[in-house]
Amino acid sequence: MEKDCVHVFAPATVANIVCGFDVLGFALDEPGDEVTLRRTDKTGVHLVNITGDGGRLPREAEKNTVSASVMTFLKHIGRTGIGVEIELHKQMPVGSGLGSSAASTVAGLFAINTLLGSPLSRRDLLPFAIQGEALACGHGHADNVAPALLGGITLVRSYEPLDVIALPAPQSLYAAVVFPHVDVPTRDARQMIRTKVSLKEAVVQWGNIAGLVSGLFTADYDLIGRSMHDVLIEPTRAILIPEFYEMRKLAMDAGALGFGISGSGPSVFAFVQSRETAARITSAIQSHLMQQGIESNGYVSGINLEGPREVNS
Amino acid sequence: MEKDCVHVFAPATVANIVCGFDVLGFALDEPGDEVTLRRTDKTGVHLVNITGDGGRLPREAEKNTVSASVMTFLKHIGRTGIGVEIELHKQMPVGSGLGSSAASTVAGLFAINTLLGSPLSRRDLLPFAIQGEALACGHGHADNVAPALLGGITLVRSYEPLDVIALPAPQSLYAAVVFPHVDVPTRDARQMIRTKVSLKEAVVQWGNIAGLVSGLFTADYDLIGRSMHDVLIEPTRAILIPEFYEMRKLAMDAGALGFGISGSGPSVFAFVQSRETAARITSAIQSHLMQQGIESNGYVSGINLEGPREVNS
Repeated sequence: MEKDCVHVFAPATVANIVCGFDVLGFALDEPGDEVTLRRTDKTGVHLVNITGDGGRLPREAEKNTVSASVMTFLKHIGRTGIGVEIELHKQMPVGSGLGSSAASTVAGLFAINTLLGSPLSRRDLLPFAIQGEALACGHGHADNVAPALLGGITLVRSYEPLDVIALPAPQSLYAAVVFPHVDVPTRDARQMIRTKVSLKEAVVQWGNIAGLVSGLFTADYDLIGRSMHDVLIEPTRAILIPEFYEMRKLAMDAGALGFGISGSGPSVFAFVQSRETAARITSAIQSHLMQQGIESNGYVSGINLEGPREVNS
Repeated sequence: MEKDCVHVFAPATVANIVCGFDVLGFALDEPGDEVTLRRTDKTGVHLVNITGDGGRLPREAEKNTVSASVMTFLKHIGRTGIGVEIELHKQMPVGSGLGSSAASTVAGLFAINTLLGSPLSRRDLLPFAIQGEALACGHGHADNVAPALLGGITLVRSYEPLDVIALPAPQSLYAAVVFPHVDVPTRDARQMIRTKVSLKEAVVQWGNIAGLVSGLFTADYDLIGRSMHDVLIEPTRAILIPEFYEMRKLAMDAGALGFGISGSGPSVFAFVQSRETAARITSAIQSHLMQQGIESNGYVSGINLEGPREVNS
């Protein structure tokens, strides 16, 4: 059934999950972005309002990932004749490493699909979301958009052809997330990474990702924690994140299963076995950062199994 | 309860499973090796007989992996005062890439542990088996000894500390295995491999290992097959295996889920969904090799969940 107005929330996401660079990610309960789509008599896609981005995002419909993705979607299903007004309400920081552009893109795509009576399945929206990421980040990665769109924990097994696998989320798995207010542009963080790695270290890395996936399937929290090591990318990226090793120590001392960088940072996250521990870790890290004069946002979240959802305006 | 004589079978194994270089492996129902241990009044470990190796294995007790592992075991549990005679009956080819030394070592260790009333658990035997591999192959890998000892499909998540995870084997998973009679020494096969790899290819590889592990847990045979790709090691090792790509084509055309090199070769294997398909593939590959003037051994096997077992002499 088609609608006149849709209001959608899509979640922030943590990509990589330490040992799964470019292939693993999971969705958070909070934060996230909201998009409102409204039909209008004026043909075309109109980006009428963006709030919460501090003026950082493009206002031209062709350059903004939300409106551009909606346009691509409409072209694909042959509905370019309709008129749509888009409002984007960013409720999460831009450039945080929490999949900010993915949350916006997914919210927009889920909204337009819902507005038109869901002609496509969620999975079918994925290629459009990846295209949106390419526009926003210069690289069409799926490790944020896949969990933002499908919810839960996802594995991007392959890009050609696209093959995204839903992994199970053990029931008592929670995330403590902190976004320190320091600037680490995604493009720069990617460029610092070595393009060649030693086979020996790569073997360590894929032993760990295999261990992490096993731990998720068996709800073996200890194995999940033992597997959360990144010998290849983290040592380089951690350089750009002030207090990284101090934050890790605080998290691990407070009972985290594992700790690492969210996406390309500067946000960090810990997996823990209870909401209380997650809250304690978030608070300990934020206090520490504050002592160093670094402001931050802290989040305590379960694994968001739902992905994007319609909300009341 | 201690015994006077023990006769043990331990299975051949397929290491790597295509995308899990150095970390994955599984045990076969056949072939395998047999070891007989008999108490004697003469103190010490005596290697009294080896059959089936064509004279290729060391006859000195200190240099043979079976007797050397038994000695290390006895030293560890403080029983060097006893006398043991060892017979090793090789019932599988040496240098085949099917974990020949691992089968012998595991048979010996399981036999001595059983002879002495099982003072150690199976898992506790693993470090001794890895030491045995180091003696036999110059490198203490666990990707053959772990499945030979524990049965099933195993993941060596980490060596330091040693962390071996048992993975589930879907019920209808079978292996077609062919050992072409060509010589590919393990040491040379290892040395040909690049020590540096591109991060991009490593990401493809760990996407696949994560997919394979997921497929094993969900018994998703199609996903298992889609994940069985090795972009890093196979292209190099395949050079040493005549007719490799022709064998793959035969296997895939006949309905294999995936196909690859067993360990460092020259044996190859296919995963399939029925014993009949496995038999058809083994036979097709062997006929093809015969036309090229290459003799071979063929095996059709389920996943051996048991590992080593006592047998009647």
